[in-house]
Amino acid sequence: MSKTVEFYFDFGSPTSYLAYRRLLQFNAAYGLNIDYRPMLLGGVFKATGNTSPITVPAKGSYMLEHDLPRFATRYGVDLLFNPHFPFNSLTLMRGAIAAHRLDCFERYVDVVYRGVWTEGKNMGEKAIVIEVLSAAELDAEAILAKAAEDEVKTSLIANTDAAVARGVFGAPTMFLDGEMYFGQDRLDFVEAVLKAEE
Amino acid sequence: MSKTVEFYFDFGSPTSYLAYRRLLQFNAAYGLNIDYRPMLLGGVFKATGNTSPITVPAKGSYMLEHDLPRFATRYGVDLLFNPHFPFNSLTLMRGAIAAHRLDCFERYVDVVYRGVWTEGKNMGEKAIVIEVLSAAELDAEAILAKAAEDEVKTSLIANTDAAVARGVFGAPTMFLDGEMYFGQDRLDFVEAVLKAEE
Repeated sequence: MSKTVEFYFDFGSPTSYLAYRRLLQFNAAYGLNIDYRPMLLGGVFKATGNTSPITVPAKGSYMLEHDLPRFATRYGVDLLFNPHFPFNSLTLMRGAIAAHRLDCFERYVDVVYRGVWTEGKNMGEKAIVIEVLSAAELDAEAILAKAAEDEVKTSLIANTDAAVARGVFGAPTMFLDGEMYFGQDRLDFVEAVLKAEE
Repeated sequence: MSKTVEFYFDFGSPTSYLAYRRLLQFNAAYGLNIDYRPMLLGGVFKATGNTSPITVPAKGSYMLEHDLPRFATRYGVDLLFNPHFPFNSLTLMRGAIAAHRLDCFERYVDVVYRGVWTEGKNMGEKAIVIEVLSAAELDAEAILAKAAEDEVKTSLIANTDAAVARGVFGAPTMFLDGEMYFGQDRLDFVEAVLKAEE
């Protein structure tokens, strides 16, 4: 029976994007199911006292110029560092909950992630979001209208709180067999578990 | 011709200890030379605005309880998380410069690292340092006397400043073929370079 990984993510995080693409590879190779858990990374940071690596300039430079490209090459994933980073991902994350309610979740996640991290779109801007979703034949108006509903907003906050309660302090975070793995750079441990099951 | 890695480290950092042990394995397997660069991690943090992961409680717990043990198991390295962590490593780091002057550098590094991270000794205490060095037949008095000399103190500061000037923001940091790698968890990239050379 194939395993399921819980994947806590935010569209604003380039390492979450790498994890997303890598998990799709694990889905193809090992039949791994992905249980997507949209959360607001800013909320996680606030609750845990954590900060983005880019708040330390030397760390940010190393990450953007060396570390992320090395992993993109290793995974065979196209990654264009978004020139509008960091941007406010709140609407996009609410949109993920909305897309789930509207039965277009996985398509939405893929379109948004690639818009941000392979096409370099300014997805903090509503007009650009509409353009990107529409170009992918998603119902942008319906998704954004749903994203503005209180139930969706509350649901995103509840997801974020639940993540923090579980020990999450950053993105991406994965849970497999009850074990927590923080960072796209820990996916080799996840893969080791999947390989051991084969 | 065998390659040389520059290894920036602080005895107070458990990830630096894992890197140290892993680099010894690379030395045995690939003939990698290790060019040790003692630096003061506290000074690096101050200069770059970086902080220890343990300043975020959820991150510290994950690191100590899950992440470090996973890597210790992967590398086959014995790691006992030091009950006195975090401790002030200033004297130990000055001692590394002193030991270099006294031609017992590599022995000193090994004895101190194992004292801290496999034996759990309280190496922030001078009496314990003397005990551990003496038990390993190192001249503790001579090393500590030299460590108190201005030339040694200045040299450690210069090493730390040079590291920061080079882009170092944490420990361990490795340079191989002019490329910077931050973290013991990036040593697989270092190994890939060594394997490619074989």
